[in-house]
Amino acid sequence: MFKILADLQFDVLVIGAGVLGIASAYHLLSNNRSKKILVIDDLGDVGQAGTGRSAAMFRNTFTSPDNQVLASTSIDYYLNVQEKIGVDLGLQQLGYLWLMSDRQFKINAKNIERMTGNGIKLKIYSKEDLEHSIHGLTTTFESSNVNAAAMELENVDGAVFGVKCGKLEPDKLTRFYYDRFIALGGHCQFSTRATKLLVEPQRKLNIEDEPFVWQETRVAGVQVQGLLDGNIYADTIVLAGGAWNNILLEPIGLDGHVKSKKRQIFQINVSRNTELRKMLATEGFNHYGIMPFTILPKCSMYLKPVQMGEQFWIGCEDEINREFVNLPDFDMSKYVAEPFYYQKEIYPVLSSYFPYFENLTPSNMWTGLISYNTLDHLPYVFSHENLIVVGGDSGSGIMKADALGRIVDSLYREGPDCEAFLYGDVPYHGAKLGVKRRSVEPEEWLL
Amino acid sequence: MFKILADLQFDVLVIGAGVLGIASAYHLLSNNRSKKILVIDDLGDVGQAGTGRSAAMFRNTFTSPDNQVLASTSIDYYLNVQEKIGVDLGLQQLGYLWLMSDRQFKINAKNIERMTGNGIKLKIYSKEDLEHSIHGLTTTFESSNVNAAAMELENVDGAVFGVKCGKLEPDKLTRFYYDRFIALGGHCQFSTRATKLLVEPQRKLNIEDEPFVWQETRVAGVQVQGLLDGNIYADTIVLAGGAWNNILLEPIGLDGHVKSKKRQIFQINVSRNTELRKMLATEGFNHYGIMPFTILPKCSMYLKPVQMGEQFWIGCEDEINREFVNLPDFDMSKYVAEPFYYQKEIYPVLSSYFPYFENLTPSNMWTGLISYNTLDHLPYVFSHENLIVVGGDSGSGIMKADALGRIVDSLYREGPDCEAFLYGDVPYHGAKLGVKRRSVEPEEWLL
Repeated sequence: MFKILADLQFDVLVIGAGVLGIASAYHLLSNNRSKKILVIDDLGDVGQAGTGRSAAMFRNTFTSPDNQVLASTSIDYYLNVQEKIGVDLGLQQLGYLWLMSDRQFKINAKNIERMTGNGIKLKIYSKEDLEHSIHGLTTTFESSNVNAAAMELENVDGAVFGVKCGKLEPDKLTRFYYDRFIALGGHCQFSTRATKLLVEPQRKLNIEDEPFVWQETRVAGVQVQGLLDGNIYADTIVLAGGAWNNILLEPIGLDGHVKSKKRQIFQINVSRNTELRKMLATEGFNHYGIMPFTILPKCSMYLKPVQMGEQFWIGCEDEINREFVNLPDFDMSKYVAEPFYYQKEIYPVLSSYFPYFENLTPSNMWTGLISYNTLDHLPYVFSHENLIVVGGDSGSGIMKADALGRIVDSLYREGPDCEAFLYGDVPYHGAKLGVKRRSVEPEEWLL
Repeated sequence: MFKILADLQFDVLVIGAGVLGIASAYHLLSNNRSKKILVIDDLGDVGQAGTGRSAAMFRNTFTSPDNQVLASTSIDYYLNVQEKIGVDLGLQQLGYLWLMSDRQFKINAKNIERMTGNGIKLKIYSKEDLEHSIHGLTTTFESSNVNAAAMELENVDGAVFGVKCGKLEPDKLTRFYYDRFIALGGHCQFSTRATKLLVEPQRKLNIEDEPFVWQETRVAGVQVQGLLDGNIYADTIVLAGGAWNNILLEPIGLDGHVKSKKRQIFQINVSRNTELRKMLATEGFNHYGIMPFTILPKCSMYLKPVQMGEQFWIGCEDEINREFVNLPDFDMSKYVAEPFYYQKEIYPVLSSYFPYFENLTPSNMWTGLISYNTLDHLPYVFSHENLIVVGGDSGSGIMKADALGRIVDSLYREGPDCEAFLYGDVPYHGAKLGVKRRSVEPEEWLL
């Protein structure tokens, strides 16, 4: 195959064309029109890795005020894009329905009060409301239900409903940013994998084996393989490779501050199941006449209703006993979803709360890598010399991508003390999401 | 080889007999005399890994008040052990001499003022003082010195001297804790490697493949190989494996919050070098008539004077361009010190400040793994259910081991909200070094 020998120079090189990379690239070019900006990605198009494999939901129902503002402003921007600019993002505000036991209500009373105080629209539903509106939901487990007792399942005593929450289509969102970026004169190169960050001395002495430990260094560029082969140089490098950030950072001794785990989504087709079709068409929560995104009171198990395909997507949080991925050994092609996991881990819980799922098996299933910050569960945006790293927010990257892209741009223009302006002119101090002066409240509502 | 099939049950199992493990074990047993406590280690004796390979220095000259109290109280305890209890720890308060340029003095003015305000004994030396007392130190580089200019070496305009700093012998310190622990009835099993943390349901259902995601879990024990083979169970597991903590934590999806890097020490024998012997015998800083531990104004390069062997040990901080170790692939036997590193990275700086090192080569060199917290550079002590993890402080584990051991014990007895009492009845809130409510000032003086 004929390959171009790259030896190119850009003002900014963005590594990764997932939603964080392409949103960053768009905001960078919007505010720095004269700059030559290139985005590269290993895959063949935008949003093909973590972004495309996610559940593609959005919410502003976070307990951390930082997460609230990052998500709320991003959602506002996406609403603006779809409703004012008129670009369809497949965005639907279905709402998030957090089913809770009395015990969980008590634990979360303060969080709910604070969210409301911060302007997050919530509705509280009673057990009776839910029994009335959601077809086939078990709210109360009889003491004779040995399965529920063995799993220590809690009753559904009510629910918290997030109004400004919903779903969008990640391919449409990434395509929107990509089109705008290209229209402004941005460059994209797909099927080109970044294999190595090139560390060079800030002041070259042209001695073999430099840089030495006594030299100040910078990341001058990146070695690439694929459709482009060779080195690409840039004044600024933005690393937005999701779970793969660490693959590039660890060899140069920089910590990406995130860990990666496998996540699985199981798709249940309900087109031949009258009862579940009735459940899918739950009325009263949104004006689409569809069941909201629903979270069970156990292991953050969720159901995403998909109207078009008459499906539910089901997933769950793996905490203990799900290994972190050792990225250097990782082989995506061998990393398949586990039917066993659906059958033994998800199904017993799901079919207890929703008995109409009994005896159904997934028609499709897939996996993705989520990379997250195990310390406070908020994203990172930090710089080291001329390198900017954004990441640690998969699981909720889509819903914060616009804000994070603006912060990356602000960090580029103003440095670590930057004051970013999120959509709606909401100020946000960039250093809060950094490493050295990180200042965020840990997130408690994890999915 | 005959092997014992272990299937043992303890109250507490401590994994790792480095200084953090054995200090923890001693304080645990001191305050919980009726408990059956076992320490295991892969190697054949206490302190054979990171502890024994370190430079074995101690200081209280930290910028972070948390580091100050952890180190100061530990040093006080070691002084008490040697001077009052009468157990020789090879402890000598040589002092730490931080050579600084005017620029570095300015950057550190506030740190120096705060340290003094916190009771840390410092002395300031002028350039003239240093020129007078340290034989062969270059303080001022002529503009004609092209090497110094190429390396951007800064002049030595003075020094900050930490009085309550020095060296001790790690084998004596770990032996002290070990002897006390055994005398109290503690158990140690060497040559026994922990290979796997055993995660079990809190409420066993005795179903195949449990625990499932819907079960609450605990770490019930550890699988071991070596002189003991099989499983060891304990009500509480204390993980104090240094760089190896992550090897056990990652497979169960818990983050140890530390990264590991290779560190090298190069030993220069000066017994045949009159000038360097004269430098080794520097007077005026301590009552041993030996040069203090000295830090150069470049890449935290240090010289440790070793009176007995007429040696200097030399090392330096590797930041960018030194890869983090991928532990699953790590093979200590292939992980040797690099003569090239001494020659190209250390020697040019060392011989510029101390020209009498010219043409000398190391007589010995070795490596260790340091594992540290890249976020704030302070240690971690946290619990997850019945698992307690201590780590992230290699590089300064020895000098804080007593305090960390007391915090581990306090966490064991009182849980995450524990109030530990460090040596001298100094209270310390254990949650400060934890994960969820971590609250420490990042350390700025790194070595």
